[in-house]
Order: sequence, then structure tokens, then C-alpha cells
Amino acid sequence: MDKLGLNDIYNAAEVLSDVLRKTPLIWSRRINPEANVYLKAENMQYTGSFKLRGAYYKISQLSDAEKARGVIACSAGNHAQGVAYGATHNGIKSLICLPAGAPISKVEATKGYGAEVCLVPGVYDDAYQKALQLRDEYGYTFVHPFDDPNVIAGQGTIGLEILADLPDVDAVIVPIGGGGLASGVAFALKTLRPGIKVYGVQSSGAPSMATSLQEGKIQHLSAVSTIADGIAVKEPGINTFEMCNKYIDEVVTVSDDEIAAAILALLEQHKIVAEGAGAVAVAAAMFNKLPIKNKTVVCLVSGGNIDVTTLSRVITRGLSKSGRNYTFKIDLYDKPGQLSGVCNIIADLGGNILSVSHERINASAEINGCILRIELETLNHSHIETIRAGLANAGYSVIN
Amino acid sequence: MDKLGLNDIYNAAEVLSDVLRKTPLIWSRRINPEANVYLKAENMQYTGSFKLRGAYYKISQLSDAEKARGVIACSAGNHAQGVAYGATHNGIKSLICLPAGAPISKVEATKGYGAEVCLVPGVYDDAYQKALQLRDEYGYTFVHPFDDPNVIAGQGTIGLEILADLPDVDAVIVPIGGGGLASGVAFALKTLRPGIKVYGVQSSGAPSMATSLQEGKIQHLSAVSTIADGIAVKEPGINTFEMCNKYIDEVVTVSDDEIAAAILALLEQHKIVAEGAGAVAVAAAMFNKLPIKNKTVVCLVSGGNIDVTTLSRVITRGLSKSGRNYTFKIDLYDKPGQLSGVCNIIADLGGNILSVSHERINASAEINGCILRIELETLNHSHIETIRAGLANAGYSVIN
Repeated sequence: MDKLGLNDIYNAAEVLSDVLRKTPLIWSRRINPEANVYLKAENMQYTGSFKLRGAYYKISQLSDAEKARGVIACSAGNHAQGVAYGATHNGIKSLICLPAGAPISKVEATKGYGAEVCLVPGVYDDAYQKALQLRDEYGYTFVHPFDDPNVIAGQGTIGLEILADLPDVDAVIVPIGGGGLASGVAFALKTLRPGIKVYGVQSSGAPSMATSLQEGKIQHLSAVSTIADGIAVKEPGINTFEMCNKYIDEVVTVSDDEIAAAILALLEQHKIVAEGAGAVAVAAAMFNKLPIKNKTVVCLVSGGNIDVTTLSRVITRGLSKSGRNYTFKIDLYDKPGQLSGVCNIIADLGGNILSVSHERINASAEINGCILRIELETLNHSHIETIRAGLANAGYSVIN
Repeated sequence: MDKLGLNDIYNAAEVLSDVLRKTPLIWSRRINPEANVYLKAENMQYTGSFKLRGAYYKISQLSDAEKARGVIACSAGNHAQGVAYGATHNGIKSLICLPAGAPISKVEATKGYGAEVCLVPGVYDDAYQKALQLRDEYGYTFVHPFDDPNVIAGQGTIGLEILADLPDVDAVIVPIGGGGLASGVAFALKTLRPGIKVYGVQSSGAPSMATSLQEGKIQHLSAVSTIADGIAVKEPGINTFEMCNKYIDEVVTVSDDEIAAAILALLEQHKIVAEGAGAVAVAAAMFNKLPIKNKTVVCLVSGGNIDVTTLSRVITRGLSKSGRNYTFKIDLYDKPGQLSGVCNIIADLGGNILSVSHERINASAEINGCILRIELETLNHSHIETIRAGLANAGYSVIN
């Protein structure tokens, strides 16, 4: 894209220097012990994600006439909050179109940053159409979430911060949804230091950029499904596709279970909250998706706006994925002493019982039988196998 | 205490400068909108808490003969990990006595930092006695969790960092358990800048220092109970009592519900994980326990080592405390259409249904009746009352 130069990135950095938080770069001992891993904690940015950078810079570059008419955007997530915050801090009006079913917490957060919210019946595409209609009707400037040179320049400032804090970085791993963040960061890094590797990561449930790059042209996915809702994008932008094609060394995908395990690792090891999209770069490093052995690597943790009830579910899933939580089902003959027998074996083998339930009405159980569900805290997968074997050796019928 | 001078704090800062993370000071817009609040994120310290500072410095000051014999400590929590990390990084041996029932995750974390772990049958006091016995038997140096001048000097380095990052600070709010952190920080701040206010916060379920200061002498609590296990201490130390008496301006207490709300606020607003003890200073600021209006205030977030399953429960409790989650119980006559009637009313009033269950076997219900439990995501307490009134007006019998 000829529309973007290094001067744009430096200009964005200058504009943003007074208003943004310079987010910390955190060294990690355990994310991938074979690499020298750092985390760029952009989840700690104001509004909880990097999106503020691009939105703020884009808004700051509008003409006075454009500013007077205000901006409009369509998003249920981080972009909405970035635009709202950026507009309010530039003293201008913002209107955000959201699908009517958006979570209460996101609607309230967007309002909290000073935006007017327009709830549109239907899904995202309906809200998007409504935003375009309102733009045409009232002359608002539409702030695109990723496919805009000034938005990309704003996101690119993260690349400058990484170089300043860690001059000997070998590789940077960046989440990709629409591709605005990846385009800006890769452009800045590759232009200044062509030797740095820049890798992109998508969710395997929404691999639009990965598929497009593979096919050599923009592909449209008919459906996307992932816990990383911030990067659940069906199609890359025209500018971002071109830039990622030029500047990104490799794009890999990670599964929802890998993302959940990465969120859990960030919570437990680093005491920081990442949303699904914010954890994909860490997931790629943890699960050895990229050639980073013995390299100094930055994983960009792009955002932390995860609903806390979702976070609870992710914790459960992450514990299970890493073998630290397991629910055994045991087919028992319903007579006294059975539960205590099972409990003794588990205690002897070092499992910690979290909950127990009996199911007596079950077509698969015998008339006098019952299914015992017993949830354990365990050490790891091999500990689970040890307990399973201990139960089987004592004659209990473990059915999962 | 004459045993401690500013030179000790500066010496500790010098020793620790190479090995510790300089934790960020994070500005907060919403914790208390009437004050200018900053968070000192010591939960992001290596090992997940400030305890490493005191433990590391104490160990570094041992003689070569003492180092050769190794150190011993008794703790199921942050102190254990601090001693283990500090000893391993000083190249010496550490032995940590833990009560046998300690959570698997804490035992594994302590081993992970290189300590040998001795599981002692019984409770904390049994493990403590065992540690003293092993010390006498093998000549290990016992590292006290708080009542030791070098440990206190290590914790005091946080005061120097706060002054360096925020020279115009008016007040610092510090959690108090045994009082080592509060003593060190207050000593450093008050000695250098007597005008700064230093406040202490305890859990209302373990107010040992608050009670002792009030009575003018050390008091021993027979029992303590709080989600802030890191500060569930029955009795302050001799040195720490004297120092807190001299240097702390006021000590207040916060409830478990207030602590849960503070943990939730840190998760959602700042994307950081605090444990119960780590959130009490924030809780005191949030719930206006201290005279901080229009002041520039630092809340010390002392640690983040909270079990993730506990964190799940705290999220639920915090949502409920802030009116964002509510479970209605409705006494229904068991016939078709009842559930859909209830659901329509709730949807019209903007509540988001999270789960539904019917209970038919219940002594308090009529034979043909059932209890409907319906869990909702709500906006706040007044939203809950609106929904309750809407259900009552439509003739439904809401029983809680």
C-alpha cells in the first residue's frame, strides 16, 4: 500500500504519546522455556485493547469540518470502545451501531466512554448497514475497524515501542482478525529492521487471512466460530491483505482449547487478563506453532475485554485441557460403602475431590446401579491416568 | 525499632535492583472517581507477590556459613514462593514446611521455584513447630515472614519506587497481615517525606493489627476467617507492631464482599489479577473508608496468587454484590406456558437469562407446584428491583 509511510507511524506515535498508556513489556519464564519470551501487555491499554491507538489517531487527523459532524462506527467490541474514547477525548461526538443482542456489559462500557449507542435489530451485518445509512444521511465520518491507512498507522506505533524497549528482538507474534494490527506492526518493524520476523496468528475457527494468503487472493468465509470473538472476521481488508502478504513471514492458527490454555497461563503465571483474541499469539508460542527456539520473541497480548462469566468458563476449560481438573464417571452398584471405597483410592493417589454427584435415573445404568460423577483437582494428564488405573484395579468400572 | 535505618532500605534496593521486576504504577480512572488513584501492581512481581523482596534481601545478607546450611520457612503461600525463589537465585538450599492439606497448586509452585517441600500432618501451627524443630536440628536459618528487620527493609523498597515514580503522592494505602510490608513502606515514606499519609487495611475477619493498635498492645485473635488468606494473621509481630504504631496514620478494615468487589474491579477495569489480600487497599479506596477525596493516592496491590477456581467463585460473588447477577426463585403452579410467561417479562425489562432450573421435590412447594430458579445478568440493584416488581405485577410469586 503506497498510502502509508514511516512518517505516518512516527506522526501517530507523537499524537498518541500524550494520551495513551505506554504498556509494559513483561518477560516470561514459562510460556515457552526454549525461547526468550516477552509479552507486550496491550490489554492494559486504556479501553482494554490496542484498538484505541488506531481509532484515536484516525479521529485526530480529521478536518475541522469532519470533526464537527462527528464519527460513526459499527462494533460490539474493542473498536467501539476505542472510537468512543478517542472521539470523546478529541471533543467530538461519536455514534456506535451495535446489534441489539450485544452483551449488556459491552453496551454499558461503550456508553461509559461517551458514545451514543444505536441498538439495531438483527446481527452484525444489519448494524453495519445501519451505520452506513446513518453516515450517508448525516455526514458522519465512518471509522473502519482495520482497513484504513490512519487506523493502521496508529496500530503500528506498537512496533516502535517494542523496538525501543527490546532492541535485540528476533521475532514478533501478532494476532490477526481483519489485519489492521498485523499490517501496522509488521510495516513498522520490517521497514526499520528487515531482519525481524513477524508472524501472524488466527483462530482455527476463523482463518480468513490465513486462507486468503494461501490462495493468493481475498477469501470470504461463510461462517466463523471461535472464543476469540475479537478476531472472528470473515474477510480481510483490501489494504490489510496486501500489507500482510508483503510483510508477514508466516500465519498459523490455534484452536479454542489452545487459546483457553493460553488465557489460563497468562492469568496464573502473569496475573493479567487476556481475551481470546488477545491470547492467540501466546498460544502459538506455548504450543510450538512457530520456529522460535532460542529466539528473543515478543507475543502481542492485544486485548483483555473478556466477559467475566466467559472467563469463568475459560478457566474451567483451561484447567481441563492441562489435566488439572477431571470428572470421572463410575458405574456403581448402589449399596453402602461404594462412595467411601472410591474416595479412599482417590485420596491415596493424591487427587483432591471437588464435587460428587449420583445419577440414579439413567437409561444406560442397571436398575440397581447408579452413575457416580466425581470431579477432581489433579496434577496433570498422567496423574489422571494413574487414578483411572487405581480405580480399575480395585474393580470399579470407570466409564469415561 | 532501632534496628532499621534508611541505609538498610537503600541497601536492599541496590541488592534487589538486578533481580526484581520494577512493577508498574497504573493510573485508575474509576476505582474512586473523587481521588487521583494509582495502583502499584506488585502482583506482577516475580513469584506473584511483594514477599520476594523481603525474602530475597534477608537471604542475601546471610553469612557464608549460614548460606551453606540453607534456609527454612513455614508458609502455604506467597512467603514460601518468595523464600524458594530467593534461595535458589542466591544459589542456596531452601526447605519449606507446609501443612499437608495445602492446595496442590501452591505445593507445586513452591517446588517449581526450587525449594524442597516438607508436608507436615495437621494445620499451619504444626508446620511451624516442625520448621523450628528442623532449624534446631540441622542449623537452617529460619526466615520469618514479617517480623525481621531485613525482611522489613526489603518490603520497604516499594516505598522508594513509589516516591521515584510519583513524587507528588499524598497518601499510600497498604494491606496489613503480620505488618512487615506496612512497616517497611511506612518507615521509608515517613522518614523521607513525613507529610505523606500511610494507611493500613485489614480484613474485618482478621483485624489483629487494628485491634492491637486500638488496645495499645499486641492482641492475639483466637480465630480468623477471610477470603484474604494472605493476611489472615492472628497476631502482629513485636517489631511490626511497634513500627505500625509509630508510622501508620490509620488502620481500617474491609469485608469479604468488599474485597470480592475490588478483585472484580481490578479484573474488569485493569485486566490484572489480585488475590484477596492484594485487593484490600483497593477495596478501602473504592468503598470510601479513608479520607482520600481530591488526593493523589497509591493503593498497593500486594499479590496475585489466587487459586483460579477461587477466582471463579469471587467473580460470581462480586457480580452479585454489584447487582449484575441475580437468581430469582419463583413459586410456580406446574402447567404449560408458565416459563414462557416469566421469560417474556424478563426479556421486556432487559434482563439476560443465564440459566433456568425447575425443582419439583421441595417440601416448601405445593404438590402441583414447582420452584423455578432463574439466573439473570442484570445492570445493577435497581434493575433487579424493576424485574422483581414486573414479575409480581403479573401475578408471579417471587419467593426471594
